[in-house]
Amino acid sequence: MKKHRVIFQPSGRRGEVADGTDLLDAARNLGVDIESICGGKGTCGKCKVRVEEGFFEKDSMDSRMEHLSQLTEVERKFLKPSDGPGMRLACAARALGDVKIFVPEKSRAGKQIVRKAAKELNIRVEPAVKKYFVELEKPSLHEVIKGDLEKLLAALEKNYGLSGLSMDFPVLKDLQDTIRKGNWGVTVSVWKGREIIKVEPGFIEASYGLAVDVGTTTVVGYLTDLATGKVMATESMMNPQVPYGEDVMSRITYAMTNPDGVGRMQKAIIDGLNEIISNITKALSAEAPGGGEAIVDMTIVFNTAMHHILLGFNPEHIGRSPFIPAIQHGLDIKARDLGIRINPGSYIYVLPIEAGFVGADNVGVLIAMEPYNMEEKVLIIDIGTNGELLLGNKDRVCSTSCATGPAFEGAQIKMGMRAAPGAIEKVKIDPATKEPLYKVIGKEEWHINLEKIDAKGICGSGIIDAIAWMYRAGIIDKSGRFDMNVESPRVRKDHEGKPEYVLAWARETSIGGDITITQGDVRALQLAKGALYAGAKLMMRRMGLEKLDKVMLAGAFGSFIDKESAMTLGMFPDCDIDNVYAVGNAAGDGARMALVSLTKRGEAEEKARWVEFVEIAVEPAFEKEFMQAMHLPHMKDSFPNLKKLIEKESPHVVIKG
Amino acid sequence: MKKHRVIFQPSGRRGEVADGTDLLDAARNLGVDIESICGGKGTCGKCKVRVEEGFFEKDSMDSRMEHLSQLTEVERKFLKPSDGPGMRLACAARALGDVKIFVPEKSRAGKQIVRKAAKELNIRVEPAVKKYFVELEKPSLHEVIKGDLEKLLAALEKNYGLSGLSMDFPVLKDLQDTIRKGNWGVTVSVWKGREIIKVEPGFIEASYGLAVDVGTTTVVGYLTDLATGKVMATESMMNPQVPYGEDVMSRITYAMTNPDGVGRMQKAIIDGLNEIISNITKALSAEAPGGGEAIVDMTIVFNTAMHHILLGFNPEHIGRSPFIPAIQHGLDIKARDLGIRINPGSYIYVLPIEAGFVGADNVGVLIAMEPYNMEEKVLIIDIGTNGELLLGNKDRVCSTSCATGPAFEGAQIKMGMRAAPGAIEKVKIDPATKEPLYKVIGKEEWHINLEKIDAKGICGSGIIDAIAWMYRAGIIDKSGRFDMNVESPRVRKDHEGKPEYVLAWARETSIGGDITITQGDVRALQLAKGALYAGAKLMMRRMGLEKLDKVMLAGAFGSFIDKESAMTLGMFPDCDIDNVYAVGNAAGDGARMALVSLTKRGEAEEKARWVEFVEIAVEPAFEKEFMQAMHLPHMKDSFPNLKKLIEKESPHVVIKG
Repeated sequence: MKKHRVIFQPSGRRGEVADGTDLLDAARNLGVDIESICGGKGTCGKCKVRVEEGFFEKDSMDSRMEHLSQLTEVERKFLKPSDGPGMRLACAARALGDVKIFVPEKSRAGKQIVRKAAKELNIRVEPAVKKYFVELEKPSLHEVIKGDLEKLLAALEKNYGLSGLSMDFPVLKDLQDTIRKGNWGVTVSVWKGREIIKVEPGFIEASYGLAVDVGTTTVVGYLTDLATGKVMATESMMNPQVPYGEDVMSRITYAMTNPDGVGRMQKAIIDGLNEIISNITKALSAEAPGGGEAIVDMTIVFNTAMHHILLGFNPEHIGRSPFIPAIQHGLDIKARDLGIRINPGSYIYVLPIEAGFVGADNVGVLIAMEPYNMEEKVLIIDIGTNGELLLGNKDRVCSTSCATGPAFEGAQIKMGMRAAPGAIEKVKIDPATKEPLYKVIGKEEWHINLEKIDAKGICGSGIIDAIAWMYRAGIIDKSGRFDMNVESPRVRKDHEGKPEYVLAWARETSIGGDITITQGDVRALQLAKGALYAGAKLMMRRMGLEKLDKVMLAGAFGSFIDKESAMTLGMFPDCDIDNVYAVGNAAGDGARMALVSLTKRGEAEEKARWVEFVEIAVEPAFEKEFMQAMHLPHMKDSFPNLKKLIEKESPHVVIKG
Repeated sequence: MKKHRVIFQPSGRRGEVADGTDLLDAARNLGVDIESICGGKGTCGKCKVRVEEGFFEKDSMDSRMEHLSQLTEVERKFLKPSDGPGMRLACAARALGDVKIFVPEKSRAGKQIVRKAAKELNIRVEPAVKKYFVELEKPSLHEVIKGDLEKLLAALEKNYGLSGLSMDFPVLKDLQDTIRKGNWGVTVSVWKGREIIKVEPGFIEASYGLAVDVGTTTVVGYLTDLATGKVMATESMMNPQVPYGEDVMSRITYAMTNPDGVGRMQKAIIDGLNEIISNITKALSAEAPGGGEAIVDMTIVFNTAMHHILLGFNPEHIGRSPFIPAIQHGLDIKARDLGIRINPGSYIYVLPIEAGFVGADNVGVLIAMEPYNMEEKVLIIDIGTNGELLLGNKDRVCSTSCATGPAFEGAQIKMGMRAAPGAIEKVKIDPATKEPLYKVIGKEEWHINLEKIDAKGICGSGIIDAIAWMYRAGIIDKSGRFDMNVESPRVRKDHEGKPEYVLAWARETSIGGDITITQGDVRALQLAKGALYAGAKLMMRRMGLEKLDKVMLAGAFGSFIDKESAMTLGMFPDCDIDNVYAVGNAAGDGARMALVSLTKRGEAEEKARWVEFVEIAVEPAFEKEFMQAMHLPHMKDSFPNLKKLIEKESPHVVIKG
């Protein structure tokens, strides 16, 4: 048997193959990944490779081709002039002599980069669900009789080396009709190389997944192309459980005090997810007419209470000491067992949880931020209705949870609203005049004169800005109390005699009234930030840390929060402001990573167990620390960075204390 | 709630029912059997009952009716003047006062004798589902935090060496509450050492399984103690799919020609199985209050068409050449995915099938009879609506299927009926006088003089006996034709001029007419037995066998069939009568063995693939062989055993041919 030498670039892998071996087989034999959705049938055109020079005795374009089989009809169909010279389909070109082959970036299987908006993360795409096209021989009376399933399994083993596969039972139900509808050609979706979860007639290239972040207040879904890892569409909504309770504890209470309370809340969130699925797949309807059924894989992150309620578990036991969850590991649950209307045989991967109050969402943050790979000691704050903290580096990471309440998300704030058009999202206040500048979502410019700008309310990042600048401008003191001696029409008392600051006059708004920051709003924010600060401080003490190298702010408005305002308010212990980062929705990023990467799922399971959970609420020191942390920071030696920052930014501020 | 007294005659059963209860429900509650094929839907008109006098204060026709609801349209349709006065449909008439009801003979359902009775099996019990009791430590705040599942898994590993277990998702849902209800002691049901399918609070010893044989005509369930393998209860019913078609082909046709035909038939059989489960677990209610949920494992055998329809597969492709089934291997299907109301997380093991027309029932016969362990060459005939044959020994076993039709089960026979009280089950005919002897189900003695014995019809084993003896007595010849020269009042022509033989005079019956065997009955039986015989003969030829060492008769009436009558009719090729065995419901035995033995499941999977399926219907020789096989046997040298037998048993028979 004649053999030929083959070299693949850029990997440099090389070896000998038998005469006539196609380049796709050659690549597989040598461990080189080349994209091929159709499995070498010549129907997908994905396996384009370039024949390289410099390897042959005769160094010319013509000679290059002598070492490969003739260009086929199929190749003529798929290869375009724009592909450049020397291009072939790996499945069609057979080695008839020594060859050197270059595999272009876009033909490399599982090597795509997912670019994240907030931070560049490199992740190799290796989804749990992969599609394979197979053609089957039509049956005859005289062959050895074989069931359709047995015939399909044999073809998958022969063409793709997949063995020991099982099949989802409802898929099996329709198998015979599907195979005949596809005229004996079908596309098979295989989960983790183990189970056939979908069979479609004919060759179907598209493969979609959905990563979901179920927050206490907000639910977001990311529709993702499983072949590239690219997000195709994003869809969000208020968590439909909000009417049952604004925060985690009130929902647990609802579950405990109402017959079928869990069932009602579970139905609300499942219905909500189905609405997201229905909306997010509308855009796909042309190429994937199955609607939600086009989605073949799904991941979810959420805190432990949302986790239990969505899965229909009684959350009672995580709601009271000793806060025991039903399960800590991740789960693969059949979509139909949850009533989630994606492909019914698909598994929904629910990320593992850390403890009773540090959930799968924090595991999402963990695998997105990877503190376990860092040298520096980092504090990661995931700010939502529940606040979760991670602290540490490659040697050790601790986690805890703080009940911050929904103030950071604009709830329990008098004029608070979601981050939607019309919401005031950024604020500055002139320390001399006490006059504000603000920016409204949906408008390009900051609001600098008294024009009508149709403001409707104020969202989380705006509240943090406003209160931080009220402090800098001396409108409130370090205890959060209003200084009623400030001379400005904006500092006044409401009809109940309680102090407030007017951020926008009625004429600037579309709501027919002034937008104000009240004493109650300031208190709500103090409670929320105090919980975060006290938690971080106690964790640092537990780990013997004096100083943070880095702070990362994650969460629903993590990308929008002004890190200087956050530091002014004392949301976290002192850190050089240049080392404070807003990292966006890291929990959602974790869900997306787990969706497209089995390695990340493995990392989630491993690191969720490795992280040390600290039960802050039971530390005797917590109550005292929390009371102190409610205050806005003293600008003393213990806060050198903050003092420097405020003196630079606001020279007119008289720093008190 | 008002109550009324109801008395049913002639049984004399009485009791109180709620106002408005229909008489069919009342009868069921009081244990009175009333025929109702439609199940009370008002579509079969079988449940006619007569309202009796003498029970009311006012003794008149008018008062009788005052105690029942008004006559309905449906009743007007079914009730005829010839039914006599006071007649109602039990399903339509509702009790509004005290009533006394007479159930006429022909409306009495008569409990079917379970001819598929369970015999003792000699088998090592090693069930797929085993129970384990564990006690868990109560959690505290200061231990290493562990989810309830993780704690349970650790205990199972420590105490029983079980590792890598998964848990059925709905079981996980209730895990925390179950553990606390059991005060930290739970009984865990584990399937195949792999998956936790049930967790019960406290220590629960009992563990039940259900083996089911779904025949085309009859369905039987065997409730089994999984710890001992002992059958606790047996329950049977007509296959509720019978209204959609009496045999396999007509049901396949129904599926192909009616929208949602498969769905309707699937629902009918699943509902039927749920009824069996509900009835069979009633006796357990004291010790296993869960009803059907106490059943943690289940196996099913059936022919390939029943298999496909029960599982919701389109049976079209097994109904036409080349007869391709969806699957050949066995399947483990979650009970809830089929809607079968045993423990919802349990798997139902469906035995493998051999080919398009040799199903899991034949695999049941295979593992029960084990021809693959025999030295002798054995023919195993499984006689049901479809006949299946196994032929061979340890070296090689072939299988095939013959469309026998339902004649062997008493259908398509003029006076045929199910094997229920009143059915003639055994017959002998005096060759000299042509007078019969017969035995009726429910009576101890043979009927020897012309007493009233309340015969209602004739069941399968009785038909075989009757026709065999008609042949021996010279009433019919080898072509099946009546000899009208026979001098007996019992051999006569019916009103259409067709010959018939009177087995019982009207005065001996409870149906007000003679019970006869017609020329048409003889033809139906000839077709059925001819199919079996031709199939066996062709298989023998294919395997080069001249002679059988052993014949085993299995099937619905396998235990009741008279092997000498069967040989007289030529149901199978010649064999020494001492080596012919009636082995009972071997398919059901196979289901029971698979239920209690994982080894037997493995054997089923292996041997189903090892057996060689022979497609008899496509053999060119089949048509010819079948035509010849329709004849009753010649008593020539080719049938030495038959000749010997008949000469011994019936010295007066002149052996023809």
